[in-house]
Amino acid sequence: MKQKIDKIGIIGLGLIGGSFARALKNTMNIKIYGNDKFHLQEAKKLGLIDEQLTDENISMMDIIIIATPVNTIGEISKKILNDIHPNALIFDTGSTKHKIAMEIHNHPKRDQFLLAHPIAGTEYSGPSAAYESLYENKINILCDTEKTRKDLLKKAWYIFEALKMKIIRMDSKEHDRHIAYVSHLSHISSFMLGKTVMDLEKDEKNIFQMAGSGFASTVRLAKSSPDTWTPIFMENKENIIKALDEYLENLHLFKEMLIKHEAPKIKNQLKETNHIKNIIDKLNS
Amino acid sequence: MKQKIDKIGIIGLGLIGGSFARALKNTMNIKIYGNDKFHLQEAKKLGLIDEQLTDENISMMDIIIIATPVNTIGEISKKILNDIHPNALIFDTGSTKHKIAMEIHNHPKRDQFLLAHPIAGTEYSGPSAAYESLYENKINILCDTEKTRKDLLKKAWYIFEALKMKIIRMDSKEHDRHIAYVSHLSHISSFMLGKTVMDLEKDEKNIFQMAGSGFASTVRLAKSSPDTWTPIFMENKENIIKALDEYLENLHLFKEMLIKHEAPKIKNQLKETNHIKNIIDKLNS
Repeated sequence: MKQKIDKIGIIGLGLIGGSFARALKNTMNIKIYGNDKFHLQEAKKLGLIDEQLTDENISMMDIIIIATPVNTIGEISKKILNDIHPNALIFDTGSTKHKIAMEIHNHPKRDQFLLAHPIAGTEYSGPSAAYESLYENKINILCDTEKTRKDLLKKAWYIFEALKMKIIRMDSKEHDRHIAYVSHLSHISSFMLGKTVMDLEKDEKNIFQMAGSGFASTVRLAKSSPDTWTPIFMENKENIIKALDEYLENLHLFKEMLIKHEAPKIKNQLKETNHIKNIIDKLNS
Repeated sequence: MKQKIDKIGIIGLGLIGGSFARALKNTMNIKIYGNDKFHLQEAKKLGLIDEQLTDENISMMDIIIIATPVNTIGEISKKILNDIHPNALIFDTGSTKHKIAMEIHNHPKRDQFLLAHPIAGTEYSGPSAAYESLYENKINILCDTEKTRKDLLKKAWYIFEALKMKIIRMDSKEHDRHIAYVSHLSHISSFMLGKTVMDLEKDEKNIFQMAGSGFASTVRLAKSSPDTWTPIFMENKENIIKALDEYLENLHLFKEMLIKHEAPKIKNQLKETNHIKNIIDKLNS
């Protein structure tokens, strides 16, 4: 179904919001209005937006995307919901969903809001990291969709399909529990690996001379933005602590096997873990 | 200096030995003799070798490369050293060096042996994973080079430079200490991350639907060969246990900061760890 969408506002013009700007501009005949507390000038210079999103023009938007750090999304959303016109849709893009769901829960315009989490990103950040094809063939998890007005959900669906995203639906609490394992824990393991190696190898020459592509791949996420990731870790801390406990337990057990020199047991565990191949292959396909 | 090299023998024709076969064949006018306890037929079929390396022809080799699992290198090396001609060079390619150094320490032909560790590899294994350019622009760490006969060290240097490798030298004990941090620990963190996520997410659909490229990158090494990596972990266990303890400590401290909700402290630590960017960039350049 064709949807009439002329004006899209984006709050937060970093990697995520900026890539929505580029992708939408490239896909549809629309005007992009944007705002960003820190990077507005850079975003303008890069041509990410056509005009600045202001208190004056916000009520003209058909869709508003909120792509700011997760700890700010709830508050911004409540404010914006007050200002939008009755057929506008707001969606956010945060990596945690349940706290945001709780914050907007009682808002009289809750049904104009959609909780979204596009599983897309790189270790780079800011407007200059944004690119047009970031969302192509990527999963977009929509949460608690029964709380969004049907016609607005259709509008969102139309946009996401135009950007070639694959849509799945999930309860926001479930989302946060799973994402702690498959995303947040990876970031922590990578950050702490980077920290450990830098702590111990005071002479950096030893790292970049001796490390190979395997190390680079494993610590890639340690380049991620602290402004984005600190709030994510705080918002989802209960689930992350559980995931961390499981990870710590597995590392301890591995260390015990090493101490006891239990080679066959270790080999067996590595073999079982090799099964991750099949999962990653599906991920990349 | 041009070196007369006609015949090269390779024991172990997986990713590492097989890639030497392909690269050398492509670079020099030589004949490759090879053997492999498990993959000889596959290696022959793939055209990795010209002839089988046997007890009969081993004394005709100018160079012999030992690319078998690290726990077998010492024993194989001692046997081969007995059989080679007086101007032949043997080098190994193992990811641990000190135990091998100890095993061959007293051999009367120790000076015909060179301890080498090319920092190159992928998460794939076996003859079919081998490829010609694996070693191009990669570091090759040569250990305890003062124990290798000067003319044979020159011969090795000639080969490695022909393959476009960058050579550094290091004490074998130092090598093992550093490599535990920049390589072995990454493999363990990746294997245990893969295990943790698979343990917890019994329904694999949740993993490959919700995980992104970050997860794939962080668990990439969990696809590595258990036959290669179990012996590496066992041989270097003292250093690895130390590295693991540091990693565990950092993960524990991170968890404590989460529990106490110390966002500024966490952000600060992530910012400091971001410095790994500069190191990885040098790695990739």
